[in-house]
Amino acid sequence: MIVVFEAHATEEQIRNVQGRVEALGLRVQRSDGVEQTVLGVIGDRKRLGDIRQFALLPGVRDVIPVSSPYKLASREFHPEDTVVQVGAAAIGGPEVILVAGPCSIESKAQIESTAQAVADAGARLLRGGAYKPRTSPYSFQGLGEPGLELMRRAADRHGLGMVTEVMTIEQISIVAPYADMLQVGARNMQNYPLLVELGRSGKPVLLKRGMSATIEEWLMSAEYILSGGNSQVVLCERGIRTFETATRNTLDLSAAPVVKHLSHLPIVVDPSHGVGDRRYVAAMARAAVAAGADGVMIEVHPDPDHALSDGPQSLTFDEFAALANRCRIIATTLGRRIAKGA
Amino acid sequence: MIVVFEAHATEEQIRNVQGRVEALGLRVQRSDGVEQTVLGVIGDRKRLGDIRQFALLPGVRDVIPVSSPYKLASREFHPEDTVVQVGAAAIGGPEVILVAGPCSIESKAQIESTAQAVADAGARLLRGGAYKPRTSPYSFQGLGEPGLELMRRAADRHGLGMVTEVMTIEQISIVAPYADMLQVGARNMQNYPLLVELGRSGKPVLLKRGMSATIEEWLMSAEYILSGGNSQVVLCERGIRTFETATRNTLDLSAAPVVKHLSHLPIVVDPSHGVGDRRYVAAMARAAVAAGADGVMIEVHPDPDHALSDGPQSLTFDEFAALANRCRIIATTLGRRIAKGA
Amino acid sequence: MIVVFEAHATEEQIRNVQGRVEALGLRVQRSDGVEQTVLGVIGDRKRLGDIRQFALLPGVRDVIPVSSPYKLASREFHPEDTVVQVGAAAIGGPEVILVAGPCSIESKAQIESTAQAVADAGARLLRGGAYKPRTSPYSFQGLGEPGLELMRRAADRHGLGMVTEVMTIEQISIVAPYADMLQVGARNMQNYPLLVELGRSGKPVLLKRGMSATIEEWLMSAEYILSGGNSQVVLCERGIRTFETATRNTLDLSAAPVVKHLSHLPIVVDPSHGVGDRRYVAAMARAAVAAGADGVMIEVHPDPDHALSDGPQSLTFDEFAALANRCRIIATTLGRRIAKGA
Amino acid sequence: MIVVFEAHATEEQIRNVQGRVEALGLRVQRSDGVEQTVLGVIGDRKRLGDIRQFALLPGVRDVIPVSSPYKLASREFHPEDTVVQVGAAAIGGPEVILVAGPCSIESKAQIESTAQAVADAGARLLRGGAYKPRTSPYSFQGLGEPGLELMRRAADRHGLGMVTEVMTIEQISIVAPYADMLQVGARNMQNYPLLVELGRSGKPVLLKRGMSATIEEWLMSAEYILSGGNSQVVLCERGIRTFETATRNTLDLSAAPVVKHLSHLPIVVDPSHGVGDRRYVAAMARAAVAAGADGVMIEVHPDPDHALSDGPQSLTFDEFAALANRCRIIATTLGRRIAKGA
Repeated sequence: MIVVFEAHATEEQIRNVQGRVEALGLRVQRSDGVEQTVLGVIGDRKRLGDIRQFALLPGVRDVIPVSSPYKLASREFHPEDTVVQVGAAAIGGPEVILVAGPCSIESKAQIESTAQAVADAGARLLRGGAYKPRTSPYSFQGLGEPGLELMRRAADRHGLGMVTEVMTIEQISIVAPYADMLQVGARNMQNYPLLVELGRSGKPVLLKRGMSATIEEWLMSAEYILSGGNSQVVLCERGIRTFETATRNTLDLSAAPVVKHLSHLPIVVDPSHGVGDRRYVAAMARAAVAAGADGVMIEVHPDPDHALSDGPQSLTFDEFAALANRCRIIATTLGRRIAKGA
Repeated sequence: MIVVFEAHATEEQIRNVQGRVEALGLRVQRSDGVEQTVLGVIGDRKRLGDIRQFALLPGVRDVIPVSSPYKLASREFHPEDTVVQVGAAAIGGPEVILVAGPCSIESKAQIESTAQAVADAGARLLRGGAYKPRTSPYSFQGLGEPGLELMRRAADRHGLGMVTEVMTIEQISIVAPYADMLQVGARNMQNYPLLVELGRSGKPVLLKRGMSATIEEWLMSAEYILSGGNSQVVLCERGIRTFETATRNTLDLSAAPVVKHLSHLPIVVDPSHGVGDRRYVAAMARAAVAAGADGVMIEVHPDPDHALSDGPQSLTFDEFAALANRCRIIATTLGRRIAKGA
Repeated sequence: MIVVFEAHATEEQIRNVQGRVEALGLRVQRSDGVEQTVLGVIGDRKRLGDIRQFALLPGVRDVIPVSSPYKLASREFHPEDTVVQVGAAAIGGPEVILVAGPCSIESKAQIESTAQAVADAGARLLRGGAYKPRTSPYSFQGLGEPGLELMRRAADRHGLGMVTEVMTIEQISIVAPYADMLQVGARNMQNYPLLVELGRSGKPVLLKRGMSATIEEWLMSAEYILSGGNSQVVLCERGIRTFETATRNTLDLSAAPVVKHLSHLPIVVDPSHGVGDRRYVAAMARAAVAAGADGVMIEVHPDPDHALSDGPQSLTFDEFAALANRCRIIATTLGRRIAKGA
Repeated sequence: MIVVFEAHATEEQIRNVQGRVEALGLRVQRSDGVEQTVLGVIGDRKRLGDIRQFALLPGVRDVIPVSSPYKLASREFHPEDTVVQVGAAAIGGPEVILVAGPCSIESKAQIESTAQAVADAGARLLRGGAYKPRTSPYSFQGLGEPGLELMRRAADRHGLGMVTEVMTIEQISIVAPYADMLQVGARNMQNYPLLVELGRSGKPVLLKRGMSATIEEWLMSAEYILSGGNSQVVLCERGIRTFETATRNTLDLSAAPVVKHLSHLPIVVDPSHGVGDRRYVAAMARAAVAAGADGVMIEVHPDPDHALSDGPQSLTFDEFAALANRCRIIATTLGRRIAKGA
């Protein structure tokens, strides 16, 4: 922690702060600058507690934390890229992974035909929800476990890994036997008891960014999972909330290079939720690959106009195949690749 | 739903939309305006599914929902104010309720002395956390059930109702026997499985606004609880996330009159989390009462500098008593009242 | 500036930064902490240029500015409250000033009747626009100089000071002979050439906060005016842009206590633009007074339903008089006062 | 306009609204739905004035505008792409245009060497500021007209078009003789008097998006210029303000496909201001091309560490050349091209 004093702080005010810090068993180094005095605090950060309290002492202008709030998620303490293996997909390696499938699992025919189509187009992972977080209590809430069974069979038949969401601690034990990767939705990014359990689950986790989460908070949420002993965490950018209303969210693609800089964890981008409009999904998927994402996750449906959820942002099979082709070429220009399908 | 066509939409495009709507068993009324054609859709809204899909049809400029997404929470369908009784406090009636207490329950002495101090100053409800959602996995996570016991005894001894947070479904059955009101934190506002369970719990619920939730989404979350059969819901504004960094959040006090207009549910304001800085809490508590809030919730601690959490935004006993006095006078000027303490 | 190094920064990387700083003629103080090394830079801040460049050097985690970016606007360098005299109003003193009037000056009868009504209700200053910044080029753009004449006469007849907006440098010389105070609109908060000219104008300035301006940037804009030699600056909070759509903007009332803490300049609140809906204006005006604002600025119109601009957020004369009465009582409870009208 | 009534609106309330609309000379079409009544208003929209006033009438739940607020900027009324010719660059055609140069013109050597480097790398346009909008009055404010002369000569020598900012109406007549394209900065996006003058200037305009402007407001600002008779407008996305602090702004790349859908005007992306950090600029430039932008604008400096402004986000010559090469390949994969330099 650094304590910055006001220009006219008195010697007594400075000594008061210094005394409090030293009383906690920490050491202080003082700099008397041209404009103000600054104290640097040396020692175990945990002893300080909530440092905002020092900002309230007389004569203090500001206090500034200097240690990183997350460690296990930080590239500083883990310089090599993490690669998370999910089925046949190595997320975070040279291959850019396509994840695709419907918003909700609706029927055997729907998930089966979708699995085939996305596998044919080069996807490695099948996405789809059996438990759905819906804004309205009156909307379709998902098929539950029967949906998981349908999805598992469809994934197996087409050699795909299976990614699906868990919304509660209890769902982990239901979902884990079926899925290859457990997804944490944006609304649960700071559901800490859920994160703690996922840290113990031993399954790869796809952690979506909260709607108004900073990148730092997102990495703190990853830290919860990592600190439980589970190092298989993949981050997923899905748009943040801003004042703009032309798109459902504002897809923050700069998260890709920023996360790559700050962390060793892989990052995948979900343009379907990011823009919420089928017409803009392909452009943003291409942009995500160009920005350096390790994967893109796309909502695909055999008949988007009749989907039970998120139809307007879902692509048809043909649209997805076209998108995959374009992304494949862009990946190549960056020295990466995307799997060729059938 | 209203469908607005582009200025140069063709007759065929208009008929295509009309046909699709009618195929769903709904009726259409057409208006040919000076600049564009508009279709009004009449009938059961649920048949339409996700209306964004119509926005993607050729020739359509926009589609606009016209039915309210929430019903039970809406004043339109329930014109009289709801009053929620919690212990001796009738929230939503003429009395403005003070809710006060520490961020976390830390010890018997701490919760006991705080209960006495806030009761003496006129508080009706004691707040305090036994299960804490902390951004960092390395921070104090709360005392759990032993904390609940300490808090219950302190509340009883001073005639206070008890409000405390539940973070998971499992915690409901642990916490409910102790507490008079269950709080849903900002991070859980859209934890739908939790809301569904609270709808069945029979306990009053204090529903905090999510950090980036619109007022409409907040009322939709209330709808989840109400639709489960629990009508005792109180909303709590606690600041939203914006670009401003001088305060921890931006306290949206206009939520008070807006919620009063749109809904019959009571609304309480939490300026402690709203600003996150002790120096600004009293001003914002006064403003909340002046804006028409049904209560204010304040973090109070016997020794804020040594609190295990949120010390910088906690008031001392004396500061809280002074705040209560000021708010009491302002309430009077609005024809309301705040309980006098000892 | 403080430079914080990564945990594993090499000695060479640290020395490299140190060398660059010293090459600029500045002194460095080094702290080797438990987790990382920190360098404090001592000397004239201007020599550093844009400090973000140091953040890009190898081994650096972060750089942190420690000197305040504004001086003249800061309470740190000017502890006493500034009081700005405009006509009979002393803004920033014990009296809370009511500023009221129409959005646009429309006619002699309109401005005249409004001046009388607001003076009778206790307003000290008449507001009204002759030059209007309108989002659409097809909207009413204001009466221009003839409007200023009408407004000046109305203000004089009722003993009111006159506040009106200038949008360009050229308008300053047209408007200044009529007005007692020149308003800078939210869209011009960072129109620096305009601020520079207002710094030379010798007239009191009402500086509205930009729609997405931080409080720090707002004070920087005040600094532009102050540094030109004009110390008569009053800040005006008018709502910031957030994701919420139920109100036109989100009125950030915490700006009142925060600005009072950081600066010696007075602050006025404009709830009319802040919420954009007549039904919520009175509640927010009361809240502004309770939060410690030095004044409130309200749109008032003889016939809001037929106003040429901002009718939906304008109050009738009776509504304004009722609002003034309520605010007057709240001011009293804070040891302040609002002028009584006729 | 559509007026949506509350579920329990009375016949009298509905007739009241209908009467007011008809009194304005407009026609009304009424739909009595299952849940509520809706009125569609037919006729010249301007007669309605500010439609928010109808939302305040008793029994009304909401009013909804249905006509587009902008016409000249809308693709609906102008389906073909606009191509803006600036020097040798046709912006909005098949070629993706590179715009590059320093933040500020600093010296003859600086602008000359930069012009050569960016021309060699394939840029068509030279950017650089002679008049700088700086947050602090104590920062470098630009060289003014002598800077323009230096820049013009450098541009000519290397066959580049010249783009530079105008901050005031007066600067237009100074800058126009030198520049091929006039830039409106983000802070001036709603400086309407400036936009009106640019509408008369006959010069191509590069209109940056305001920091918190919606895409609709941005197009409304373009409408100001277009309605003055100047059809040569290019939009420039440069990042919007959000809660995220890891980047200077949040670059909204979805603006590229959205603007292409809503408007016929070309769109260029400025990743340098969008992220504000040299390390992330290349990734976001690639992403912008992949998302379909018609150009990218990059800050380039011979010695970024000693730039007088924006050094930390400026690229070296080599970094720019590498970026241009990558973007060139991506453009090709989309069937577009980027000019080859020397």
